Amino acid sequence: MQRTLGTCYYPEHWPRETWEEDARRMAEAGLTWVRIGEFAWSRLEPEEGRFDWDWLDDAIAVLGAAGLRVVLGTPTATPPRWVVDKHPDMLAVDEQGRPRKFGSRRHYCFSHQGYLGECRRIVTELARRYGRNPHVAAWQTDNEYGCHDTILSYSDAARAGFRDWLAQRYQSVDALNRAWGNVFWSMEYDRFDQVDLPNLTVTEPNPAHVLAFRRFSSDQVVRFNRVQVDILRAHTDAPLIHNYMGRITDFDHFKVGADLDVASWDSYPLGFLEDRVGAPPERQRAYARQGDPDFQAFHHDLYRAVGRGRWWVMEQQPGPVNWAPYNPAPLPGMVRLWSWEAFAHGAEAVCYFRWRQAPFAQEQMHAGLLRPDSAEAPGLAEARQVAAELAEAPEVVPHRARVALVFDYDADFAWAVQPHGRGLSYFGLVFDTYRALRRAGLSIDILPPDPDALEGYAAIFAPGLMHMAAPFKAALAESDALVVAGPRSGARDLDMAIPEGLPPGLPGADLRVARVESLRPDMPVPLSGGGHVLHYREELEGRLDTIIAAEDGAPFAVHAGGHLYLAGWGDEDALDRVIAWVCDKTGIEVLTLPEGVRVRDTGTERFWFNYSDRHAATPAGPIPPAGVLRRPRA
Amino acid sequence: MQRTLGTCYYPEHWPRETWEEDARRMAEAGLTWVRIGEFAWSRLEPEEGRFDWDWLDDAIAVLGAAGLRVVLGTPTATPPRWVVDKHPDMLAVDEQGRPRKFGSRRHYCFSHQGYLGECRRIVTELARRYGRNPHVAAWQTDNEYGCHDTILSYSDAARAGFRDWLAQRYQSVDALNRAWGNVFWSMEYDRFDQVDLPNLTVTEPNPAHVLAFRRFSSDQVVRFNRVQVDILRAHTDAPLIHNYMGRITDFDHFKVGADLDVASWDSYPLGFLEDRVGAPPERQRAYARQGDPDFQAFHHDLYRAVGRGRWWVMEQQPGPVNWAPYNPAPLPGMVRLWSWEAFAHGAEAVCYFRWRQAPFAQEQMHAGLLRPDSAEAPGLAEARQVAAELAEAPEVVPHRARVALVFDYDADFAWAVQPHGRGLSYFGLVFDTYRALRRAGLSIDILPPDPDALEGYAAIFAPGLMHMAAPFKAALAESDALVVAGPRSGARDLDMAIPEGLPPGLPGADLRVARVESLRPDMPVPLSGGGHVLHYREELEGRLDTIIAAEDGAPFAVHAGGHLYLAGWGDEDALDRVIAWVCDKTGIEVLTLPEGVRVRDTGTERFWFNYSDRHAATPAGPIPPAGVLRRPRA
Amino acid sequence: MQRTLGTCYYPEHWPRETWEEDARRMAEAGLTWVRIGEFAWSRLEPEEGRFDWDWLDDAIAVLGAAGLRVVLGTPTATPPRWVVDKHPDMLAVDEQGRPRKFGSRRHYCFSHQGYLGECRRIVTELARRYGRNPHVAAWQTDNEYGCHDTILSYSDAARAGFRDWLAQRYQSVDALNRAWGNVFWSMEYDRFDQVDLPNLTVTEPNPAHVLAFRRFSSDQVVRFNRVQVDILRAHTDAPLIHNYMGRITDFDHFKVGADLDVASWDSYPLGFLEDRVGAPPERQRAYARQGDPDFQAFHHDLYRAVGRGRWWVMEQQPGPVNWAPYNPAPLPGMVRLWSWEAFAHGAEAVCYFRWRQAPFAQEQMHAGLLRPDSAEAPGLAEARQVAAELAEAPEVVPHRARVALVFDYDADFAWAVQPHGRGLSYFGLVFDTYRALRRAGLSIDILPPDPDALEGYAAIFAPGLMHMAAPFKAALAESDALVVAGPRSGARDLDMAIPEGLPPGLPGADLRVARVESLRPDMPVPLSGGGHVLHYREELEGRLDTIIAAEDGAPFAVHAGGHLYLAGWGDEDALDRVIAWVCDKTGIEVLTLPEGVRVRDTGTERFWFNYSDRHAATPAGPIPPAGVLRRPRA
Repeated sequence: MQRTLGTCYYPEHWPRETWEEDARRMAEAGLTWVRIGEFAWSRLEPEEGRFDWDWLDDAIAVLGAAGLRVVLGTPTATPPRWVVDKHPDMLAVDEQGRPRKFGSRRHYCFSHQGYLGECRRIVTELARRYGRNPHVAAWQTDNEYGCHDTILSYSDAARAGFRDWLAQRYQSVDALNRAWGNVFWSMEYDRFDQVDLPNLTVTEPNPAHVLAFRRFSSDQVVRFNRVQVDILRAHTDAPLIHNYMGRITDFDHFKVGADLDVASWDSYPLGFLEDRVGAPPERQRAYARQGDPDFQAFHHDLYRAVGRGRWWVMEQQPGPVNWAPYNPAPLPGMVRLWSWEAFAHGAEAVCYFRWRQAPFAQEQMHAGLLRPDSAEAPGLAEARQVAAELAEAPEVVPHRARVALVFDYDADFAWAVQPHGRGLSYFGLVFDTYRALRRAGLSIDILPPDPDALEGYAAIFAPGLMHMAAPFKAALAESDALVVAGPRSGARDLDMAIPEGLPPGLPGADLRVARVESLRPDMPVPLSGGGHVLHYREELEGRLDTIIAAEDGAPFAVHAGGHLYLAGWGDEDALDRVIAWVCDKTGIEVLTLPEGVRVRDTGTERFWFNYSDRHAATPAGPIPPAGVLRRPRA
Repeated sequence: MQRTLGTCYYPEHWPRETWEEDARRMAEAGLTWVRIGEFAWSRLEPEEGRFDWDWLDDAIAVLGAAGLRVVLGTPTATPPRWVVDKHPDMLAVDEQGRPRKFGSRRHYCFSHQGYLGECRRIVTELARRYGRNPHVAAWQTDNEYGCHDTILSYSDAARAGFRDWLAQRYQSVDALNRAWGNVFWSMEYDRFDQVDLPNLTVTEPNPAHVLAFRRFSSDQVVRFNRVQVDILRAHTDAPLIHNYMGRITDFDHFKVGADLDVASWDSYPLGFLEDRVGAPPERQRAYARQGDPDFQAFHHDLYRAVGRGRWWVMEQQPGPVNWAPYNPAPLPGMVRLWSWEAFAHGAEAVCYFRWRQAPFAQEQMHAGLLRPDSAEAPGLAEARQVAAELAEAPEVVPHRARVALVFDYDADFAWAVQPHGRGLSYFGLVFDTYRALRRAGLSIDILPPDPDALEGYAAIFAPGLMHMAAPFKAALAESDALVVAGPRSGARDLDMAIPEGLPPGLPGADLRVARVESLRPDMPVPLSGGGHVLHYREELEGRLDTIIAAEDGAPFAVHAGGHLYLAGWGDEDALDRVIAWVCDKTGIEVLTLPEGVRVRDTGTERFWFNYSDRHAATPAGPIPPAGVLRRPRA
Repeated sequence: MQRTLGTCYYPEHWPRETWEEDARRMAEAGLTWVRIGEFAWSRLEPEEGRFDWDWLDDAIAVLGAAGLRVVLGTPTATPPRWVVDKHPDMLAVDEQGRPRKFGSRRHYCFSHQGYLGECRRIVTELARRYGRNPHVAAWQTDNEYGCHDTILSYSDAARAGFRDWLAQRYQSVDALNRAWGNVFWSMEYDRFDQVDLPNLTVTEPNPAHVLAFRRFSSDQVVRFNRVQVDILRAHTDAPLIHNYMGRITDFDHFKVGADLDVASWDSYPLGFLEDRVGAPPERQRAYARQGDPDFQAFHHDLYRAVGRGRWWVMEQQPGPVNWAPYNPAPLPGMVRLWSWEAFAHGAEAVCYFRWRQAPFAQEQMHAGLLRPDSAEAPGLAEARQVAAELAEAPEVVPHRARVALVFDYDADFAWAVQPHGRGLSYFGLVFDTYRALRRAGLSIDILPPDPDALEGYAAIFAPGLMHMAAPFKAALAESDALVVAGPRSGARDLDMAIPEGLPPGLPGADLRVARVESLRPDMPVPLSGGGHVLHYREELEGRLDTIIAAEDGAPFAVHAGGHLYLAGWGDEDALDRVIAWVCDKTGIEVLTLPEGVRVRDTGTERFWFNYSDRHAATPAGPIPPAGVLRRPRA
């Protein structure tokens, strides 16, 4: 497969007379794709039912004439003012009960039927007009579902939708009361229409109630996206894509992705490091101009799974951004490194956001490939270099990893509902595991919690899956892989209750979590032989083959029923020991990598990436800061 | 008196077929009491006026048949959904003006007349049915008044109630204007119905206004509780109890307690340490599995005063809880230590919360004496040991201490209204004093600010009493005890104004606070001879016999008119010096205790408790971590 | 000119029988001025249209008879309850959408027409009655516009006003859409009445939208004040004054000041240090009893500019205040130092707030010159000393500085809208520059961004002017002074867009900001030769004569087109180097001052002030803590 580059372009932002030159320069730089249209509703339909297609026809024609392929976005992330005037209650309501206002973007509630109707109309019109346009080679639905904390809405529309969802799920209110344990504080309902949204309660609401609301909210996104997909499918054969945003876990990307052809994500390594990775300050400082060395790779692997192998980077940071607490410029070479890392992980395309920096509005301080004065910004030279390298270098051959890591959005919901210890999150636990695997030089496949996804791996890591469906438990038990589970595996049943017989309930394993505790950050529990348990710990009982124990004698890593179970949250040393043990058992080779260096194996090659700002010596040779090495695999 | 144990049980949470076995196991473990019913309104009255008594009749019969004595709770802390549907405006409103929602507990405003009527009905029905039941040996009103910040409500009902309360208190609006100094910023009212609740003002509201609202809010709790007491008294002779929550000071427990027979409190040493004690991080870490070594004792002594000698621990932590930022497991032995400490301070009964951990709803991660699978949790063995020891060991004989410490809820309100320095609180000042007294090995009686309570003590500590009524001042002056007052004693008159002639206005003492200042935490003021003043300092004038002075010459501890007055907030060393001086003057013996060891004297014995996680050597012999020693008093 | 002292007095707070004695003591202490009336609306107009002048007639007569000159305040900062009852929607609404409540002060929205009418009436009545009163020698409008975050109101009245303001400014909604770049996220409007206030949007609103709202809000203050000025001018020839509050920058003081005769500000050095200066903790501790050594001087110089040479300190801290997180007592001598520092900077009068500490209401813990018991507080002796010194010492002769510093409220708005890096502010940048100039022993004139204000200076510092109007740019370019600009100079056009041709666009300078970045606080960029760039950095291009470069080679200080341009935020060492270079070029003498010592030159003298709490050796001789030296200029 030919890997390609692209960019995001807003013809409506620029004078008509610049379009040809822009298109020419894009093509000259080696770009293939140009994404357009996703925020242009006010220009496509300036008032209800009056459409203005001329400019978009023209723009597509100009871009196509330059040899570019268009990704056309549906503009539903930015309903114009007149849509909001028509449906004042379409605005999402935040957890404090305040309706959000027009004046930025994503100002809609996924549950609002009236707004959904407006989306149907604009998407239908777009699909009819451009579904067979020869230059429109892909479609994007909406933009960054969930960005700016927009999944959970506490509106009247959401409440009505939630009640319907509950009625369908539980069929009777008695069933709901029983499943949630509403007898606990006389929280029992007589009718579904008494169930409110779980915000602004006196003390915490029932975790079963909150989890149900999170699942409902996730399903509303799936429904919203599917409405667009169904319309587009009727008018086009081009692939359908959504651009997910990094570390947004408020809805199930696998479920949205199942309706689409290609997954994509928006990769802002420096913005994410400051805003979302949650790294300690010294790591934030060390990688301030490079980004976290594992955060991008994690998302690459995640979206390869979401896209069932087909995925893009739809927006790639090309310079400083505007939205993080601090917005430094990338180390020279990082734009190239980020691009190649995406390809090494299997990306079909990498598109830089955006072509030219806008001098106005919210993102005026967000770099583009061009500066506002149309001169080249530093990122463009690196993009051009990547394009040249793509043209010359051997193809990147896909590769199935030997190690897999399960990611389950529902588990993330459950942890968010009940972190048990301050600051704990499922994402954090999985990402710590991912980082440890990468420190060992491993390439990883991320998997959904799907019984059919498990075949062919030597080892499967599945930490923190708070609810595990019986078929998935069975599939893990039957897998040939060494499965690493815990902590909190199977800790809750489908309705957020502790299961009968105690967790984790893994088939074939005589193993029970007798008690759990969460720990202050200054209370690490030392392990015999090195490493510590942090944050969260479980007391186990059953027939335990202890691999690693705490100095106080309590088992930390136990072998039971063919699984390795971890009874707590391990620090770096503890996870390194676990991975060393697993790799030893499964015959997987482990590397010792210099600080900041990471590898990724493809079918034929090993890529080496240097995220540090210093030269590093590797077995593959010296590698400069921001450097990339490609070596044939032994 | 025979000290007893008990537990909290929710028959409505468990299948009917488990009740006999549960009751049998409770009795077998040596428990006497079982508290039930306090959250069961939705099961007792599933719809308005339709009562379902059968299950409760049955449960009481089963428990009684096993030899257990029932504490029956009124279920008014958890009004069911239909009650809220009937009275939508009964929900409390928070300081931001947001009505709180159904879905947890304590979702009522104390001022709502309609809800009060519902409470009257359910309590009347309960009292009629069970007032003479031979197994119902005590009653609990509601549950944890004030928990989850529920005393101060900014609802329409509260506003109407506040205006009535003001009208009764001040009689004329001119009197109110004068008392509050409303001329200050043209804040004068023409009618009582112009007075709003003191939230959401542009800058701070008048402190007199806020203090009045806090007093009103406290009085509403007294009224609410009294309605239940009056009903219950008409139908039962069993003792009436309320279970107060630790470090809730938003209403006057002495005033609620005056209507009841027994005080009780809910003791969660590990949860409180993480969430409420306010200890520095190193102390939080050192005692993370034991709890603060003085926090439980303080509340024991406080509720002994609130109960006029009769008090219980109604809920005792038996393992990890669910609600603190971090929820560790107790050090083995602590459940026993906590129980014995309560008895040493005079508790009649200690009840563990709860019998069996619930697998569902908000407290699913709160340990019980049984695990969710009905196996024994670690706490049960310790409870059983305490029961055995109670049966064998000599009776705990009450004891009047030689040192008293005054605690005044009204002073806590006043400090909360006007802390003057960030983070300062009356509770913090009193607790620092209490800790210092305990470090010196003293046993302490806590007293209300009641002129009749002062007799028989060698020394009375009364710090921080911002308003002191004239009779109480006079009683202190006439007391034979050495009285230790200040800082902020008598700093305000009844309506929160600085009194004429300046504070403290202690009879017989030529002493005035000429000026005060609050200090950054990094500005300790060194005292000559050791110790520092922190946070808050007063400049004194008058005829001063200085006992301790600052290095800058300003008096810190002065002897005046028979009182020792402290012109600031002393650190540990300063308070130790003050206590040494007081004990020297009054002939009270002082001990030097190892870190984490505390003592409590009864009429015949001295108890030694080791809160540390290390062995300690004491004059009474070696004591292991979590150890308890009983020794006859010399 | 004879410099004078005064105080703030509230006859309505005190019994009539104390007024003569108070007046006598004021005069005896050497005070000239007494400000009264500014919070007395409820006493002047107890109900609508019923006025009670007798007490004020009397008070003015008593004060005048003692030889005092009255500053009479309009009481519009404290509308009484009945005014709010009449106009319930006059209350300002905060950014969260909550109406603010009656019960403190400043509870009005500047945009409310009904309230403006009430103000017109009370001011007219006051002006008619006292405009020609011989004792009323000055007037104060309202009190501390902007205190307690009261400029930005999100009320219906503000929204309506904003739409009108926009319509007048842009004339057509298309012009607004173009100017703001509303095409960006389909934010285009069809009518002005679709534009909402920029709060509660999903993510950040358009910076152009927010800047417009801030400018509108500032203009509303100007309009509100002008209404009062126009009325007062019709009835009196006495000077009109407003008392601005320290570090309130939410409205343009120059524009308000243009309508008045004298500027004044309220100086609370200790409160400001704790609450507003933003000093690091070690500086806060070192100066906790003295105040920041540059903060007062900065405001003195600022208000000298706002008052076009005529300015007062209307409220001077005389002891501990009540409103900061911590409220220490001043070091003895500081009240005198603060007073003399104001005179050295050109103040005509310094009035102490307040005469007697009020025992009631919100400011009961705010010191006065008298204690609540009417005894002298420590501040009074220092005030008396200043009065004596004023009587004896030579006159303070005005002086035009050689160095000027531009302060532009509009730039502060723009930075607040778009700080780009967390915690960055225009005020912080300008104040860092001011501090550096003071460390070098320089006296400074602060200037508005006015082309006509630039004449006569050797050097003009103009950092951070995000929008620079063309005439001002031209005036700077034509100035004989060495102009120091950057960072962020001219970074935006009038409507908050990046200007064509890139910033800064300084006439005659071949200089462009090619890219910017903001930096974590732990990422200082070292400069060759000493110092660092912090927080924010620009990449320059053009014909650059680099004076100071970073170790990575990037220019920091460049000489271009007669300007010195700074491409980043310099730390102390970097700014010291810049100032040394500028002073060397311009022949200005630089001093090396001991820690905490500052100087101020008048026409004939050099004043030395010691803000430290230690003795210091200076070229002018030794100076004790809180000491003041006056020396003839060489």
